[in-house]
Amino acid sequence: MVDHHVHGAFATAPDRARFEESLREGPHGPVPPWMSAFDSQLGFAVRRWCAPLLDLPEHAPADAYWERRAALGEAEVIARLLPAAGVDHWLVDTGYQGDRLLSPEALGRAAGGAGHTVVRLEALAETLAAAGTSAAAYPGAFRDLLHEATRDAVAVKTVAAYRSGLDLDWSPPDLADVEAAAARWLAAAGPQPRLTDPVLVRHGVHCAVERGLPIQFHTGFGDRDLDLHRVSPLLLTGLLRQPAVAAVPVMLLHCYPFHREAGYLAQAFDQVYCDVGLAVNHVGARAAAVVAESMELAPFAKLLYSSDAWGPAELHFLGAALWRRATGEVVRGWVDAGDWSAADARRVVRMIGRDNALRVYGL
Amino acid sequence: MVDHHVHGAFATAPDRARFEESLREGPHGPVPPWMSAFDSQLGFAVRRWCAPLLDLPEHAPADAYWERRAALGEAEVIARLLPAAGVDHWLVDTGYQGDRLLSPEALGRAAGGAGHTVVRLEALAETLAAAGTSAAAYPGAFRDLLHEATRDAVAVKTVAAYRSGLDLDWSPPDLADVEAAAARWLAAAGPQPRLTDPVLVRHGVHCAVERGLPIQFHTGFGDRDLDLHRVSPLLLTGLLRQPAVAAVPVMLLHCYPFHREAGYLAQAFDQVYCDVGLAVNHVGARAAAVVAESMELAPFAKLLYSSDAWGPAELHFLGAALWRRATGEVVRGWVDAGDWSAADARRVVRMIGRDNALRVYGL
Amino acid sequence: MVDHHVHGAFATAPDRARFEESLREGPHGPVPPWMSAFDSQLGFAVRRWCAPLLDLPEHAPADAYWERRAALGEAEVIARLLPAAGVDHWLVDTGYQGDRLLSPEALGRAAGGAGHTVVRLEALAETLAAAGTSAAAYPGAFRDLLHEATRDAVAVKTVAAYRSGLDLDWSPPDLADVEAAAARWLAAAGPQPRLTDPVLVRHGVHCAVERGLPIQFHTGFGDRDLDLHRVSPLLLTGLLRQPAVAAVPVMLLHCYPFHREAGYLAQAFDQVYCDVGLAVNHVGARAAAVVAESMELAPFAKLLYSSDAWGPAELHFLGAALWRRATGEVVRGWVDAGDWSAADARRVVRMIGRDNALRVYGL
Repeated sequence: MVDHHVHGAFATAPDRARFEESLREGPHGPVPPWMSAFDSQLGFAVRRWCAPLLDLPEHAPADAYWERRAALGEAEVIARLLPAAGVDHWLVDTGYQGDRLLSPEALGRAAGGAGHTVVRLEALAETLAAAGTSAAAYPGAFRDLLHEATRDAVAVKTVAAYRSGLDLDWSPPDLADVEAAAARWLAAAGPQPRLTDPVLVRHGVHCAVERGLPIQFHTGFGDRDLDLHRVSPLLLTGLLRQPAVAAVPVMLLHCYPFHREAGYLAQAFDQVYCDVGLAVNHVGARAAAVVAESMELAPFAKLLYSSDAWGPAELHFLGAALWRRATGEVVRGWVDAGDWSAADARRVVRMIGRDNALRVYGL
Repeated sequence: MVDHHVHGAFATAPDRARFEESLREGPHGPVPPWMSAFDSQLGFAVRRWCAPLLDLPEHAPADAYWERRAALGEAEVIARLLPAAGVDHWLVDTGYQGDRLLSPEALGRAAGGAGHTVVRLEALAETLAAAGTSAAAYPGAFRDLLHEATRDAVAVKTVAAYRSGLDLDWSPPDLADVEAAAARWLAAAGPQPRLTDPVLVRHGVHCAVERGLPIQFHTGFGDRDLDLHRVSPLLLTGLLRQPAVAAVPVMLLHCYPFHREAGYLAQAFDQVYCDVGLAVNHVGARAAAVVAESMELAPFAKLLYSSDAWGPAELHFLGAALWRRATGEVVRGWVDAGDWSAADARRVVRMIGRDNALRVYGL
Repeated sequence: MVDHHVHGAFATAPDRARFEESLREGPHGPVPPWMSAFDSQLGFAVRRWCAPLLDLPEHAPADAYWERRAALGEAEVIARLLPAAGVDHWLVDTGYQGDRLLSPEALGRAAGGAGHTVVRLEALAETLAAAGTSAAAYPGAFRDLLHEATRDAVAVKTVAAYRSGLDLDWSPPDLADVEAAAARWLAAAGPQPRLTDPVLVRHGVHCAVERGLPIQFHTGFGDRDLDLHRVSPLLLTGLLRQPAVAAVPVMLLHCYPFHREAGYLAQAFDQVYCDVGLAVNHVGARAAAVVAESMELAPFAKLLYSSDAWGPAELHFLGAALWRRATGEVVRGWVDAGDWSAADARRVVRMIGRDNALRVYGL
């Protein structure tokens, strides 16, 4: 399989509070004392599917799970869980706290596959701000840095959803507007600059269009920094209609709960692809239902697999384990009902889990 | 079980037209002659689940059901249906035509449980208008009345969804703006004043935040007074981010068809809870599908049960009966598939049906 | 059955490229070489359900299907597929490339049923523009033409969703505004005028309200000309509330992925009806899931069947075949679970597939 959007695994062991926080996509900060992050579909899935790989019975209690995990140590947890994912290509977005995580190369090595780099556009812009780039130099400097940074990358990624929302006028911004926006941002940026300006976000995306690599868009749910009602993939419709964008693969990530809408875009626009990564992990026992909904309008050549795992190696493994089981259950139901042939089912599962990604990313 | 949002049952018997109207959430006015309110998921559920409690066979025809109900009389219908719900705490919103319904105490007595009061914010404001409060006195008078009226209440409720929509700037309004809005409203208000002004709606909500009781928000579908596209719970995101609001439980009611979005908010914000009340009754045979969707992102400590029943005692009983069956079917499926342990399933059902509400409302 | 919204079948055989394009609702232009339009739920459904009617095994490969179809010729394909739909009333929207398709009469003849005409409002307006109508004459000329063109029609249809979006102020426009908008449009209109002006779209709809025939609204997904986030049926709420509109049946077509929202409107407004046409064909093996979702809030007297087929006779047949199977599977599940009686299930299927349409359209 190809995991076409993922992050690194923890390089060192988290404490329990940190581990439980990593099972929650949404909130910032510690889990309140009156609840447990294990009491969720994701938590139940960890206890069901990961526990046996740590020599525990299925559904081992949360405390037992944590103790066993801590006793084994992060290296051993990684050694057991990552190869079990059965993924041989990991496309790693290094743009979020990447220094605390395994690098793409280290992840690939630990998992028995290849690690590839996905470059986050907004992180590049923040590098320029931190380096003291002038507003006049910014537009060209971003373009140059993008080319430089993506020399060995297989894709770029944008988190516009978190920063400006997706409800933008997506036309390419004028050079003068980019300079003016850069001037405002660079003047205000502190030691840890955070790009939220919509003009600069658009500049980044249009430079990426020109660069020509597949562009991954965060869409749908994520942590609470975003406004979920402003990150439907449908808000990209105006961008997708632009002739220059027709030539570049646009990868809609996550999409939940707008995965049907994403399937529509994947049918309507030849360059658009989508997945239900992140969601499959977080909905756990409901993964088959979400996968089935993602297989309605989207042509089968336009669906991919990703985990969006970040941190605990459980997430890298679970994404693949839950997706395989969910997709298998869904297509088996269609074969059993006579709707699909068994040969078609095998072919489509292979397209989504592997072949589409190999083709789009040129792996 | 705890029914954490409900209204009273009819104090006296309705005629048939009135009864059928009460099976429709949406329209105002009589059911057209070319259709029957019984020909709906809710109507079929009444004939399936309530008929046997009235000594009729399952699926008894609508006419037979009505005749039997009328023959028994409202007191007997109540005596058979309310205790059968198996609910021992009823949290009763008295703010909508409460004088035609059983009081919280009477409902609890008839059902063999305890009735608790939920105070509707907009109804308080309308009391002030009817009492001739001046605009200058309004801001403080509302706050005082809220404290007074909630002395024995377990929660407050807002129907902002019906009045102003939820697509507001949810910041606390300035005092001067509240006075100006009150002046406009009080000058225009007739003998039955109806609060729709967004500034006054916000004032009510922020006074409630200060008061500190759990705040119930109508979100999602309801009768046709509301614009469904303006009542998604996601429109509360800006409110939920405010530090003062982090300290107060926010209870998202109904949510359908935005219950996945509500589940996201329940995961993203520690103080947010949600249910699929009202929907469970109205979708009838589809209750398991809706319940399953509500159990995707929401942590299990954040889901609750409610019926939102109003009027016919059938609705008070059905809410509990359908929820129990739907939730049982959903978690049994996960246990049978090996995804959940049976012990976890029992524990989670108890959390959602009872324990979460006991904790949040301090019952 | 009554197919209450459909287009003609191809009058002459398409080539393969054209045939595959017709299996894609979304894009304009040829299918890219790295994918096949057969690799979709619709393509799999064609191979599953239509192949046996062309003497091929179920799931026949795409190439074999195409070769057999081409060898039989369009007349024979039509002769095998159209009567197999089991539809005896076809309500045909002739407004989109109708000259390349069978007329309503020819479609009915080929299928062994009756063809009826549905008049597309925007196409009428474009006729006036092409005929050189003056701006001053336009408002009245449109009204006159509408009456003339609908003398034998059973309904009108609007594609406002494609032209202006549904996010309009839906109040009746002033005469002066209509004339001014007409002046702008007529001055700019080329030899193939396309109506997109929102004022003229509204004028068309309100003339139709006055005319009094059922009005079909395209809502939800369609080809990529539309912005899916601007075509939710909920955006019609303001129109539906107008007293004049309460007297006219409003038929919400397609609705996917907003079919739950459409069901809400069908419950909230007595004059509103909905279907999941087009979607049922495109989601193929998922048809039962979509049909089940459409049967939640909508009263059973308010649901209808349509295929929205256009071009290949496969689509006219599949719509009916998939709907019958999906609806049968859904209601059988409820009967088996004891939720519905078998007699109710038969009655409701007949209402949706036939009786509701006969009543609304006066057939």
